[in-house]
Amino acid sequence: MVNYSPGLHVLATFSTSDLYLKDAGGCKKIFDELIAELDLQKVGEVYHSFTNGGFTAVVCLTESHVSIHTWPEHNIATFDVYLSNFQNNNTEKVNHFFKKTVLLLEATIISQQEIIR
Amino acid sequence: MVNYSPGLHVLATFSTSDLYLKDAGGCKKIFDELIAELDLQKVGEVYHSFTNGGFTAVVCLTESHVSIHTWPEHNIATFDVYLSNFQNNNTEKVNHFFKKTVLLLEATIISQQEIIR
Repeated sequence: MVNYSPGLHVLATFSTSDLYLKDAGGCKKIFDELIAELDLQKVGEVYHSFTNGGFTAVVCLTESHVSIHTWPEHNIATFDVYLSNFQNNNTEKVNHFFKKTVLLLEATIISQQEIIR
Repeated sequence: MVNYSPGLHVLATFSTSDLYLKDAGGCKKIFDELIAELDLQKVGEVYHSFTNGGFTAVVCLTESHVSIHTWPEHNIATFDVYLSNFQNNNTEKVNHFFKKTVLLLEATIISQQEIIR
C-alpha cells in the first residue's frame, strides 16, 4: 500500500569559525538566497539567537525543511536539508543546497549521513 | 578539538489514518502537551496545511527541533525528534517524545533511524 518514498534528507555536523556560528542573520541570507535560486517555497521560519551567541533555526518549506543549530563554545553546528519529491524530484536540489551552504559557511564536515526517506 | 556530541535524532516514516494525517491542530496539541510534559523550551513553530489536507510542521526548541510532514494521498508521514544534550542529557526525552507521538497518532512505523549527532 505504501509505495511513496518522500525524498533525500542530508544530515551533517560541521565545524567553522565563530564568525558564522554566531551570525543568524548571515545564515538567513544564505538560506533565503538558496531558496530563491532553487525555486523552493518557504511557508514559515524561526531564527532564535542564544545569549552565548549561538543560534537555532528551522525553515519550513512546502518541500519539507532545513534546520541548523550552532554551538560556538564547541566550534560546531548540525545542519539538515530534507526536500520531498512530491511534485518534482528534488534530490539534486538537496545536494546543491547542502554543498553551497557548506561552501559559503567555510565549513569542515565532521560527519554526514544521507537518508532516503 | 571537537569533543561535543550534540544528541539523539530519531527519524521515522509511519502510516496512520487520514484522521491524523489531515489534522494539523490535533498534532499541535500533542506536540504542545509533550513539550510541556518534558519541560522543553519552544522558541517558535510553523504549522502549514495544504489544500489536499496534508500538513507540514516544524517546532524550534532551544534543545533543537521536532518536525512532521504528512502525505494523506500516500497514507504516510515523516517525523523527526532531535534534542541536544547541551544543558542536560535529553536522550530519554527524545525516546519518550517519539514513542508517545506514535502512540497518540495510532501510527504504524514503516522505517526508523536513530542518529547520535
